[in-house]
Amino acid sequence: MYDSIKSKLNNLKNNKIFELLVVSVIIISALEIGAKTFELPETAISLTSILDAFITIFFLFELTVRFVADEDKRNFFRKGWNIFDTLVVVVSLIPIEDSEMALLARLVRVFRVLRMVSVVPELRVLINSLIKALPQLGYVVLLMFIIFYIYAAIGSFLFSDINSFLWGDIAISMLTLFRVMTFEDWTDIQYETMEVYPFSWIFYMSFIFFTAFAFLNMVIGIVVNVMEEEHQAAREKKEPSLSELQQELKEIKAVLSELQKK
Amino acid sequence: MYDSIKSKLNNLKNNKIFELLVVSVIIISALEIGAKTFELPETAISLTSILDAFITIFFLFELTVRFVADEDKRNFFRKGWNIFDTLVVVVSLIPIEDSEMALLARLVRVFRVLRMVSVVPELRVLINSLIKALPQLGYVVLLMFIIFYIYAAIGSFLFSDINSFLWGDIAISMLTLFRVMTFEDWTDIQYETMEVYPFSWIFYMSFIFFTAFAFLNMVIGIVVNVMEEEHQAAREKKEPSLSELQQELKEIKAVLSELQKK
Amino acid sequence: MYDSIKSKLNNLKNNKIFELLVVSVIIISALEIGAKTFELPETAISLTSILDAFITIFFLFELTVRFVADEDKRNFFRKGWNIFDTLVVVVSLIPIEDSEMALLARLVRVFRVLRMVSVVPELRVLINSLIKALPQLGYVVLLMFIIFYIYAAIGSFLFSDINSFLWGDIAISMLTLFRVMTFEDWTDIQYETMEVYPFSWIFYMSFIFFTAFAFLNMVIGIVVNVMEEEHQAAREKKEPSLSELQQELKEIKAVLSELQKK
Amino acid sequence: MYDSIKSKLNNLKNNKIFELLVVSVIIISALEIGAKTFELPETAISLTSILDAFITIFFLFELTVRFVADEDKRNFFRKGWNIFDTLVVVVSLIPIEDSEMALLARLVRVFRVLRMVSVVPELRVLINSLIKALPQLGYVVLLMFIIFYIYAAIGSFLFSDINSFLWGDIAISMLTLFRVMTFEDWTDIQYETMEVYPFSWIFYMSFIFFTAFAFLNMVIGIVVNVMEEEHQAAREKKEPSLSELQQELKEIKAVLSELQKK
Repeated sequence: MYDSIKSKLNNLKNNKIFELLVVSVIIISALEIGAKTFELPETAISLTSILDAFITIFFLFELTVRFVADEDKRNFFRKGWNIFDTLVVVVSLIPIEDSEMALLARLVRVFRVLRMVSVVPELRVLINSLIKALPQLGYVVLLMFIIFYIYAAIGSFLFSDINSFLWGDIAISMLTLFRVMTFEDWTDIQYETMEVYPFSWIFYMSFIFFTAFAFLNMVIGIVVNVMEEEHQAAREKKEPSLSELQQELKEIKAVLSELQKK
Repeated sequence: MYDSIKSKLNNLKNNKIFELLVVSVIIISALEIGAKTFELPETAISLTSILDAFITIFFLFELTVRFVADEDKRNFFRKGWNIFDTLVVVVSLIPIEDSEMALLARLVRVFRVLRMVSVVPELRVLINSLIKALPQLGYVVLLMFIIFYIYAAIGSFLFSDINSFLWGDIAISMLTLFRVMTFEDWTDIQYETMEVYPFSWIFYMSFIFFTAFAFLNMVIGIVVNVMEEEHQAAREKKEPSLSELQQELKEIKAVLSELQKK
Repeated sequence: MYDSIKSKLNNLKNNKIFELLVVSVIIISALEIGAKTFELPETAISLTSILDAFITIFFLFELTVRFVADEDKRNFFRKGWNIFDTLVVVVSLIPIEDSEMALLARLVRVFRVLRMVSVVPELRVLINSLIKALPQLGYVVLLMFIIFYIYAAIGSFLFSDINSFLWGDIAISMLTLFRVMTFEDWTDIQYETMEVYPFSWIFYMSFIFFTAFAFLNMVIGIVVNVMEEEHQAAREKKEPSLSELQQELKEIKAVLSELQKK
Repeated sequence: MYDSIKSKLNNLKNNKIFELLVVSVIIISALEIGAKTFELPETAISLTSILDAFITIFFLFELTVRFVADEDKRNFFRKGWNIFDTLVVVVSLIPIEDSEMALLARLVRVFRVLRMVSVVPELRVLINSLIKALPQLGYVVLLMFIIFYIYAAIGSFLFSDINSFLWGDIAISMLTLFRVMTFEDWTDIQYETMEVYPFSWIFYMSFIFFTAFAFLNMVIGIVVNVMEEEHQAAREKKEPSLSELQQELKEIKAVLSELQKK
């Protein structure tokens, strides 16, 4: 009997209309979250709390369906997206009465919108590509962090007496340097320190130069990676290489020279 | 007799001088629109209204020529550019006396300049490539919208009491986040919220990181698409693949081994 | 005798040391121009005027050498760089006493620095590549201009009463839109018009979207061009195409099938 | 006996745990530098000075190990990274008591963090690629400098009376132009000069256009370089070219035609 339920739920899980229903509920939940940021009349607020309960129950139901229908229950909670879905559902179930925690409850509900990513496969591919690209770019990110750290330390030593709001300690200085990197009012910061250290423009220019170089490196790295993957895909289609063709030609030649000898 | 008119109009439509005339009238109409934004003397204003009438009549005439000369009249109004041209002409014909509507009439006339795009084929290609690229990039745009929506909801929940002008509701918050994405005075927004939530820099940094990633994805997607199209064009020239060459070599080998056996 | 002078001057023109001397004089002239922007003591000012005379005479001498040594005197003044050099030298020769014109004389001398580009071949190549790329990108530039023109006209019609400094007429509006495109304090402009037209954010967002698309198109166009040139260079090395290899294989097969019949 | 020490030190140098220890000490030194930018209690300050001494001694020890273990002692100090490491260690050894010099001593210690780059090979590769790319991009950088110099000279001549803080002399003007290139409050500068010279927008627009072109050229140059290197790497793998395959086919044909004649 369990098996028959399982196969029925599996059918349900893969049903196009059920998938559409899940996406619709996520969209409704997103709209509800958006609506809550506006000032609402009393009736609307009571409506949203009913809607909220319905969405929580539906998500719980959908997760149960997915879990029961899954062939490999041991690895169900090893997949990142399943863990994420479960967390969102479980946290929604916790009854929160404290007003302090109400804000937290609201924030958790925002992450329901992210379920859109876990449900639509094309979006999942995009996010996975981000996660996959991160370690490859690790050394460029490390280099960028070292550049930030050194400049933040120097900036903090030299400029903390000039403006402690911007250069007070190394953490604040790194935030200020990120601001300089986005070119956001960076000349105001520069003019202020140039009054004390007239050559401090070298500090800013060299920083902009190094971060721009590291950033360029990162972009080129990503482009080269993408192309490499395309080549890899071509190779996996068993497209022969030029070397293989050359090998075949050599074999033909050997046969011909034997024929000639006859 | 209708056929003879039709063929004459068709000749007119494809006449180089007529095409040049159409482009010239569009440029004149553009200059007129530009001139109207300056303060003009009485005489010039009366001149522009005469010019206006002339341009409207000419456009009506040109559209009629194109319609009569068209072979396939049923599908004439199914082509986007024809619909656009007709709309511009028809709206110009509506007599507007109300001063309220005068502004609208002016705005409609501005779109006459867009007729330049519908007349010059090279520009039409550029616009078509934009329209064609949109659905392909659909999922990246969707991902970007989800990122904006989630951050706007969080921002609205947390920061609406700090500055309701920037974070009042989810719509205003999305506008503010677009501003953060363009790096426009974003540190002012950040410093304001950091006074209440000292860790809110995580909110901004992560947002900038995610949108930058999605944007990069979009650009790389476009570049890969362009290259794919180039490859496609090469394939359509019936350039053989390496696999096909390998196949031929194998056939030659088979023939040779038979020859050897003799 | 003229021929002997000509060949001697030709030797001089192609002499490495002479080339280095020309570059040195250009650098000295650049340094002199830079020095003049600082407040100088009396003696230094009189020194610069002597230096000025020397540089003018040297440039005149160098141009004469180049002209006399040139084989094809008729086309000497058809080459852009020669015209540019002659203009710079000739204008320097005009004696200017009027204080009004003194500023103009100074500006002309600034262009002497550009002679660096006309003398160093590698820089000439870079500038030529810019000039060569312009017509190819013509239609994208035209499209961008049309977008600017339409938005400037709309902006001028709608917003000129709100802020005539930014939206007074179509020329000023185009300047303001260029500012919006560089994201420079664009939200201030937006917030101002949103007070009157709450939906004017659509105006700015769509403008940013269209110009970003046109700009992206331009960049991709340049990249594709560069790659096409690389391919062209490869083809000119007489590298055979895959189709040609296939043709050869077919010929071999024909020969083999004849052999088989024997 | 010296040889046995040498081989032991060589083993130590290549020991994974020793490498990890060096990296750890660098990280501790980085954390110490960061900690010093915060206000620390007395005990912590005395702790950092002990830590400082320990780090200096450890770095001296590590450098000695590397020097003794090196096969080719003559060229040890010809390698940039070795010179850098030695400088950092030697300068740390100088006892500084003067309070003026204390700041300098702090700054030198910051560069210890850069030792991370000299120790981790992957980071060294990134920095080397920057140094290698510089001369290739030399002419584009030179062109950019000439553009900056000419515009700074013109700006200084025309605008120094309007705002001497921004356009006082050619050095200040170049700084202002760099600010314009980063789009940082550039319209304020423009509006100020447009009050005196209404056409000065041409100055800014053309400057932005030229620098954007030079920058684009640089980026494309880097991308083409990267691809060229990939092609070079493919060629070094002895992948045959299409021309070589064609040559082989021709040889086969020659053999066949001889066979046919028999």
